[in-house]
Amino acid sequence: MLNIETPAVIIDMEQVERNLRRYQQCADLHGCALRPHTKTHKIVRLAKMQMEFGAKGVCCAKLSEAEVMAAGGIDDIFVAYPVIGREKIERFLALSRQIRIICGVDSIEGASALSDAAAAHGQRAEVRIELDTGYARAGVQRDEILEFAKRVSEMPGLDLGGIFTFKSATLAGKPTLDLRAAAEEEGRLLSETAELLRSNGIPIRDVSGGSTPTGELVAAYPGITEIRPGTYIFQDVSELRQGVAEPEECCAVVKVTVVSTPTPYRAVIDGGSKVFAADKKPMTPPVNLPGFGRIIGHDELIFDHMNEEHGVIVRNDAPTGLKVGDVLYIVPNHVCTTMNLFDFVYLREKDGSYTRTRVDGRGRVW
Amino acid sequence: MLNIETPAVIIDMEQVERNLRRYQQCADLHGCALRPHTKTHKIVRLAKMQMEFGAKGVCCAKLSEAEVMAAGGIDDIFVAYPVIGREKIERFLALSRQIRIICGVDSIEGASALSDAAAAHGQRAEVRIELDTGYARAGVQRDEILEFAKRVSEMPGLDLGGIFTFKSATLAGKPTLDLRAAAEEEGRLLSETAELLRSNGIPIRDVSGGSTPTGELVAAYPGITEIRPGTYIFQDVSELRQGVAEPEECCAVVKVTVVSTPTPYRAVIDGGSKVFAADKKPMTPPVNLPGFGRIIGHDELIFDHMNEEHGVIVRNDAPTGLKVGDVLYIVPNHVCTTMNLFDFVYLREKDGSYTRTRVDGRGRVW
Repeated sequence: MLNIETPAVIIDMEQVERNLRRYQQCADLHGCALRPHTKTHKIVRLAKMQMEFGAKGVCCAKLSEAEVMAAGGIDDIFVAYPVIGREKIERFLALSRQIRIICGVDSIEGASALSDAAAAHGQRAEVRIELDTGYARAGVQRDEILEFAKRVSEMPGLDLGGIFTFKSATLAGKPTLDLRAAAEEEGRLLSETAELLRSNGIPIRDVSGGSTPTGELVAAYPGITEIRPGTYIFQDVSELRQGVAEPEECCAVVKVTVVSTPTPYRAVIDGGSKVFAADKKPMTPPVNLPGFGRIIGHDELIFDHMNEEHGVIVRNDAPTGLKVGDVLYIVPNHVCTTMNLFDFVYLREKDGSYTRTRVDGRGRVW
Repeated sequence: MLNIETPAVIIDMEQVERNLRRYQQCADLHGCALRPHTKTHKIVRLAKMQMEFGAKGVCCAKLSEAEVMAAGGIDDIFVAYPVIGREKIERFLALSRQIRIICGVDSIEGASALSDAAAAHGQRAEVRIELDTGYARAGVQRDEILEFAKRVSEMPGLDLGGIFTFKSATLAGKPTLDLRAAAEEEGRLLSETAELLRSNGIPIRDVSGGSTPTGELVAAYPGITEIRPGTYIFQDVSELRQGVAEPEECCAVVKVTVVSTPTPYRAVIDGGSKVFAADKKPMTPPVNLPGFGRIIGHDELIFDHMNEEHGVIVRNDAPTGLKVGDVLYIVPNHVCTTMNLFDFVYLREKDGSYTRTRVDGRGRVW
C-alpha cells in the first residue's frame, strides 16, 4: 500500500459510488432532478462522476468554483448565490456564453445590475429567486416574494427560471432532528410559493430545495423539481448523528498520527483546526456531537479540542491507551470544510490503488 | 487603485514594518533573540523581512512549512513540534544537512527514533525539549523533565540545545487577561527548569517561550534567551481584546461585499467560515469577543454568525444600514487561520501599489 504521510484525507471510491447511487435512485424514483452541490468535494473528476450517475447539472456556492467546474467540462451549473459587483457580473455573463449557468437573486439592486449588464451584451441571464424558508440567511422574505418576482420577471436581461431555498434540517426556523417535518415544511413552502407566482402569471419551472439530511424526503414532495445535496457523496459525523448516514457510508476519512502522549490521559494528534476545521463545534444543537470527529474503531475516545496543528484526544477518567506513532482514522464532523483545507487528497480506487488528486476548487471563495 | 475582488485579504506593509520593529526592539532591549513564528503569515518574503529586521531565525509548526521556508532561503528554523514517523524523520535530517534546523521532542519513542536515524546517517539532530507549563497540550510534565532530559542528552544522534514551551495567555492552566502574571509564571517555570537541568549536568543553552500576548514581558524575564511570537506581525481582534494591540496595528484585513439584505435587520457578506475560519468563537474566555471580527468603522455592527460562504451581520435592535454592494473591511478574530484559507493575498506596498502574493506555506500540515 502507498505510504500516505499524515495528516491526509483518504476517500473510498467504492463507497462514493454507493452514496451517489443512493441519492440518484431516490431522485429518479420521484422524477426529481438531482443537482449535487460540489462544495463538498470540489473535485472535477467527482463532479463528472455525479453527472455520469444521472445528475442534471451541479451546484456551486461561488462563481470561482463554477469557473473551475466549467473549465473541467461541466456544462450546467447553478451558482446558488447572488452575483454582486461589476467584475463578477461580467465573469458570470462570460460563462453563460459558453455553458448553461444560473445564479440566485434576492435583491432588486443585484437583479437589476445583472439585467442591465446582460442586456448591454444582448444576453439574458438565467436566474432563480432565493426564498427564505426559515433558515434566516439570504433569500427574499415570503410576504415580499410576489412583488419581487413580478419586478424580476419584467427585467429585460433576465430569464426567471425558478425559485430555490436552503433550509437544511430546520423546522419553524430552529434546528431539528425531525427530518420528516423539516422536509414537509420545506416542500410545502416551496410549492406554495411556486403556485402563488404561477397564479399571478409568472411562469416558474424549477423548484429547487433539499440538502443532504432532507433531500430524499424533499424529492418526494409534489411540485419539487430538483434537490441539491452536497455532503451525501462522502457523508460525515453531522449526517451520522442526524440519522441520515450509516458509519460505513462516511467514506472521506482523515488519517492522523499520535505525535505526543504527555500523560496517559491525553494524546495529541497531528491534525487540528487546519485539518478538521472548527465550524461544527461539539455539542451544537440539534446534533450535540461529543467531539470534533469520530475516531474509527475507538468509540471510547473523544476528540476533545484543537489548536491549529494539535488535536487533543482524551477518554473519560481512563488512560487513552494510545502511544506515540499510533495511526488513527477520523471521520470529520463537517467534511466540506475539511476538504477545503487540503490542496490534494488520496482516492482509494476500486482496484485498491491510490490516486493523489488536486482539490480543484479549494479556496475559491471569490 | 487596483480593483481587488472580494473576499480578499489586504495587508498594509507600512504597518507590518512598525509591528516588526516594535517586537524586535523589545527583544533587542532585553538581549533576547526573536524567532518569529511563520504560521501567521506563511509567506517567504515576510519571513525574510523578519530576518532583516533582526530575527535570529524563524519558527514553524510543521516540517512542510519549514521545507517551504528553507527553499525560500531561510537558514535557521525551529520546528516547534515533534517529528514522528520514518518519512518525516528522513525529511528533517535531509533539511538539517542544508541548514540549521531544530525540532521539539517530548517523548522517548520520538526522541530515540530520531536519534537512531540521525546516528545511522552519521548526523546529530538538534532538538529542544518541550515543557508543559500549564497549557496542557504537548510537552513533558514538569516532574518528569529531569529524567527525560537525562535520557535525551545521552542519545547518540541528538544534540540537546534547549527547552521551550507554549503557554500563551494562561495562568495556572486557565486563560487569563493578566498578561503580567501569565508571563511571570512562564518565565519562572522555564528558567527554573533550565537551572534544574544545568545543575544536573545537562547543558541547556536555549530557553524559548513567549507568544504575541506575553512575548514582550517574557523577553524581559532573566534567563529567557528567545521568544517566538507569530501574530505580532499582523495582530488581530484576539490581541486587541487582550490589550496587546491597538486597532491601527491590525494590518491584515479582509475586504468583503454585502451580497444580500434579506431584511433591514440582517445583511449577508461574501465571507463565511471559508474566509474567516471559525476556530476563535465569539464569547470564548478570557477575551469574550462579541463577533467573528471587527468591522472597521462600524462599531455598531456585529458579525454574528457564519456558514461556509455566508457571513451574517446584525445590529442590536436596529436596522444595519447596509445595502447590497457595500464594501466592508474586517479584522479577523484569528488572523493565522484566516491566512491559511487563502492561496494569495494582496500586499499594499509603502508606495501605495499592490502586490498579489502567494501564501507559500498555506495548507502545509504534513
